[in-house]
Parts: sequence; C-alpha cells; structure tokens
Amino acid sequence: MGAIKNTQIVLADRPVADIEPKKTFRIQQVSISDELGPNEIFVKVLYISLDPAMRGWMRDIRSYIPPVKIDEVMRSSDVAQVIKSNSPAFKAGDLVRVSCGWQEYAVVKVSNDVFKIETFHGVPPSTYLGVLGLTGLTAYFGLHEVGEIAKKGGPNCTVVVSGAAGATGSVAAQIAKHVFGCRVIGIAGSNDKCDYLVKDLGLDVALNYKSKTFFKELSAATPKLIDIFFDNTGGDILDGCLRRIAFKGRIIVCGAISTYNDVAPKGPAYYSALITQRARMEGFIVFDYAKQYGKALEDMSRWIKEGKLKSRETVVHGIENAPDALVSLFKGDNTGKMLVKVADEDSTKSKL
Amino acid sequence: MGAIKNTQIVLADRPVADIEPKKTFRIQQVSISDELGPNEIFVKVLYISLDPAMRGWMRDIRSYIPPVKIDEVMRSSDVAQVIKSNSPAFKAGDLVRVSCGWQEYAVVKVSNDVFKIETFHGVPPSTYLGVLGLTGLTAYFGLHEVGEIAKKGGPNCTVVVSGAAGATGSVAAQIAKHVFGCRVIGIAGSNDKCDYLVKDLGLDVALNYKSKTFFKELSAATPKLIDIFFDNTGGDILDGCLRRIAFKGRIIVCGAISTYNDVAPKGPAYYSALITQRARMEGFIVFDYAKQYGKALEDMSRWIKEGKLKSRETVVHGIENAPDALVSLFKGDNTGKMLVKVADEDSTKSKL
Repeated sequence: MGAIKNTQIVLADRPVADIEPKKTFRIQQVSISDELGPNEIFVKVLYISLDPAMRGWMRDIRSYIPPVKIDEVMRSSDVAQVIKSNSPAFKAGDLVRVSCGWQEYAVVKVSNDVFKIETFHGVPPSTYLGVLGLTGLTAYFGLHEVGEIAKKGGPNCTVVVSGAAGATGSVAAQIAKHVFGCRVIGIAGSNDKCDYLVKDLGLDVALNYKSKTFFKELSAATPKLIDIFFDNTGGDILDGCLRRIAFKGRIIVCGAISTYNDVAPKGPAYYSALITQRARMEGFIVFDYAKQYGKALEDMSRWIKEGKLKSRETVVHGIENAPDALVSLFKGDNTGKMLVKVADEDSTKSKL
Repeated sequence: MGAIKNTQIVLADRPVADIEPKKTFRIQQVSISDELGPNEIFVKVLYISLDPAMRGWMRDIRSYIPPVKIDEVMRSSDVAQVIKSNSPAFKAGDLVRVSCGWQEYAVVKVSNDVFKIETFHGVPPSTYLGVLGLTGLTAYFGLHEVGEIAKKGGPNCTVVVSGAAGATGSVAAQIAKHVFGCRVIGIAGSNDKCDYLVKDLGLDVALNYKSKTFFKELSAATPKLIDIFFDNTGGDILDGCLRRIAFKGRIIVCGAISTYNDVAPKGPAYYSALITQRARMEGFIVFDYAKQYGKALEDMSRWIKEGKLKSRETVVHGIENAPDALVSLFKGDNTGKMLVKVADEDSTKSKL
C-alpha cells in the first residue's frame, strides 16, 4: 500500500486547570508508511478509550507512567485491526487491544502490550476497552484478590462501591451483586446515575453522595455494616464507610479521584476503625495480575452472555471529536464507558 | 475478715479532649465484703497496668469492648494476689492477672479472663502486665499475625516501630531485631528514649520524631524502604512511613496514641501509597488470639531468659496517683511499661 494519510491528534499545550479542546490539542494530517520491521504490525484504529487517568498523563510530573510530551500523539488504549503483519503472532484481520493513541493508523512493535482480542462469547470488540478492558479487569482483580469475594461473598455480605456508575465501579458492583449474590450499595454523584444503578444494573440501593443526608442514608442502607468497600473516590465517602466497616471488613483501595486535584489531600480521619473492627485496607494495581487476564476475560465475557454484567457505552463518532468528548467525560456527561469510534471493522479480510 | 476498706477510682466525667485527672476521675472509699459465692475469689491488687487503650474505653461509642460507665470503677488489667478462694482452680497466695480495675480489692468470678501467673523462667510478676502482659502479647501477635514476620522477616526486611520505647513498641522492636534478625528502626519522642533503644535494646537506628529533620532522617534510615511498619502512634509519623512504604509493605495498625485526645483527628493524607505500592494497612485486637497466649508466653519468657527481650517499667506508687500517671503516659513521660504499684505481694501465705 505504501504511504497512507493518517489523521492524528497531538498534545499542543499542557492544561493548567480544565482542558480547552482547541488550545490543548492540535489535529494534523501526516503520511504513514506500512513498511514493517521485524515483529511489527500495521494497524487501523477502530475505537479509542477515554479515561479520567488521561488528565494525569498531561501533567509534567513523575508518576507511574511518563507524561505525554508536547507535540506527541495523545496516549490512549485502543481497539485496532491488524492490516498487515510481520509477526507470527498476528495476521491481517486480527483485532487487538493496543496503546497507539489518538490516530487512525499506527505501526506497532509487538510486545505484551499488544493483546489479541478473542471474542469468547461474541461480545463486540469495543467491550475490550470497557467491561473487558483494564477498567473491568481492575474491578475483577480488586474484588477477587484484595476483597477475597469468592470467600466472603453471598447474601450475608454487604458490599459498597463508590464511583459505582463509572467504568470500574459499575463492573465491581455488578460482579458483587449478580455473580456473588451480595447486598450491594452503589454510591454515585447524580440521581440519574443512581436510577441507572438500581433500575438498569439491579443494585439493592444507590446513594447520591451529594445528598445532604448522605451519611444517614449510608447508615440506613448498611444495617449489618460493610463487609467489603470497593473505593474509587476516597475523601469523605471513605471516612463514612470506615465508620460503617464490619468486623474483619475489607477496604479495596482502587482509586481516590476525589483527592487527585487537591494540593493537600485529607486522609481518612476514621482509619482507627481498622483496629476496633480488625479490618484491612489494601491497594493494588491491575498490571500485577497480567498472567491471570485470560481467566478473568473468560469469566467476564461469560457473565456478559449470561446477562450478569451489562456493558454501557457512550460512543462519540469521529476522531476529530475526541478532544470535546474528553471534556464531556470530566463533566460526567457519559454513563458507562466513554469511547470514540474511529473506523468500522473490516470484515473482508481476503482483500487485505 | 468480713468488711474491708477499699479505695476505688471511678470514671466521673467523660473527657472530650485531654484527660483532666480531678474532673475525669473521682476517688472514693467503699466497704467490700470478702464473702464469696461459688467459683469466686477475693483478690488484693498489686499492680495496675496503664494503657493508651484506656482513652478509648472512656468514649461512649461502639467499639470492641463496651465503654466504662460513669461512676463505674475505671477498667484496667491488674496483677493481683488471691487472698481467699472459693474456686478449686486457685488458692490463697496465688498470683493472677485479672481485670478488676482501679481499686485495692475485688471479688472476681473465675473465668477465662483470670489468668494464673506461672513464672515460667522466674520473671517478676509485674512482667505479666508488660512484656508478658497484653502489651507484650499485642506486639507478638501484631508482628506474627498481621505483619507475617515469620514469612517476611530477616536481614533484608526493614521494620519500623513507632512508640518504640513504649510497652508494646519496645517488645515489637526487640522481637523484630533479636528474634527475626530484621533491620529495625525505632521512633520515639526524646533523645533519652532513642539512646535507650539503641544502647539498651540494640536497635539499628532510633529516631526522635520531635527532631526538625525527622522525615529526612527517616528517609536516610530506610534506603530500602519499609517492609513492616508497626504503628502505635498514627498522625504525621504514619504519613511519613506511608511515604517510605515498600512494595507489598505491611502497616500493622496497633494504635494511634497521637490522635486519641483529638476531637477531629487527621487521617493519613498519603494513604494512596497503598495503591502504588500494593501495600496493606490492617488493624487487630490481641483478644482475638487468646487461644494462642500460652505458646506466645512460652516463647517470650524464653526470649527474656535468652536476653533477646528486655523488660523496662516506669512504676508510679500509690493507687491515688493513677489518674496523673495516665496523663503522663499520654505525654510520653514513661519508658517501657507504665504501672501503678498498689500493694506489696504477701509472701507469708501461711497467715492467710
């Protein structure tokens, strides 16, 4: 094929506070060659994942991953299709999850980061950025490995999930409810999201943390206290749940989004409940469980098929709309996973 | 003997913040009869144990143990001598560890809480409130059960102990150092205590948390970060140790004495290190391990005999001084176990 026109969106300017789509990003047309070196593949991007973590990648500070450079293609997880392969592990037509960022095409060196999508139960490929993506895997391993839900779960087990309408929280809440049969209370930031949690996802109770009587409602909803708290937010919600933690309760420390923008974040004042209740707070990172992703994806795609795990996506069409879509993610306009659809899957593999 | 004069100290008023000896407590003289019902013993208190946990027992909140009631004798662990027995398990002259509180005499119903002191290796009976008391047992079980020191210990394991000159901390630090061979850093509140930790107890490093360069010193002392943090104090020290926690590190949440008198305690602002370091904070209560006390006491009395575990006590004389002594415990005036000596042991058992 030779040289192909490739639309890219690059980081033009680091935002100080809110992202300003036209200032923060720049769209550009470049030419890309599909000539491949050893063990490289040429891919077409189908879906781009938009994640809150992206705000952190734009900051020029030391973190668990280096920042995106100025004039560099904006980083993202994508679902892409292999167009041409110089690797024995992939063939044209294969679908992969890969980090090639906000662009239409890319040449990718094959590594552990290039994950071949096996559609176990016929779930659509975009699911591999949501329920079956890193956010879903984070829910799965947090509950299993840190929360030990396989041992503690059941109808007598009360599970509370903060950020429950988010990409990770919604999966954690559904697994706890529909796979392990726990009593599940979801915490979210709007009445619409609470409706979604109860009516669509089938949780027992959903609480809006912006309610003036939130802490009273939390107490009323947890008469037998909280056995497992899956925490995505930190802050006052974490403290409120510490006050309700059960004997030998587990706090899965997944995230602390409520504190990420604070210069001097507040810690959980009531952490001494860990002593009186013999409870445990433990953090984790999903990458540590990479060897078990296969089993997790098999479980979760089966649960999707069985209707235990619903996948909801907010899909924006066209790569040129990614900057605005990212802004709307931070406003909470989406429900479920926020994606940008860049291209259709090519099903006529023989043409390639 | 019939009726005997008994001096008691009762809880008069729940403190909101600091304990005010004359307001919080009331001393009273009552008359006690040594008439015994079935399975009861009449005891004379020799030593009263003063413990940070007492501050919690004065609070009218749900906890692991009901609060001390107003006008009730202040709760404590004591070493006492049996004066008269109506139980086949005890005879006059026996020494027991028992919870009969701040008073000179008591009639006690025999239960699992009445522990007959067997001086395994000839250690003095007051040791049964210190190294071989609940504080020592707390150190033992915290390290073993929560810290999993038998698995993690050794020369490559860095252990930090806060409140390291206190009753629990000094035992935890010595076990980590002299039984498991770890690199042990003790944190205390005076240069004298630091000298004691290094020169008498043989720790690798001792740091005075009141030093202006404490956090720099803590970093310098933990070049390989902290594998196990045995925390008795909470507060800024906990936050400093969270900043130095190692991959898969363990924080044994034993106590939080720095926060007990606070109306609105500060939580550990840096707790999100639990995520990045996949670390764990876990609380515990020694009573949960009651069935294993025998093994622990055997181990610890042998370690005393072998010189691995040194016992130091700060002894205040006279029951009437217990309230002031408790206040000085919170100020950190003690080194090692804080005790009130109430009476001498009666060695002329034949008289009884």
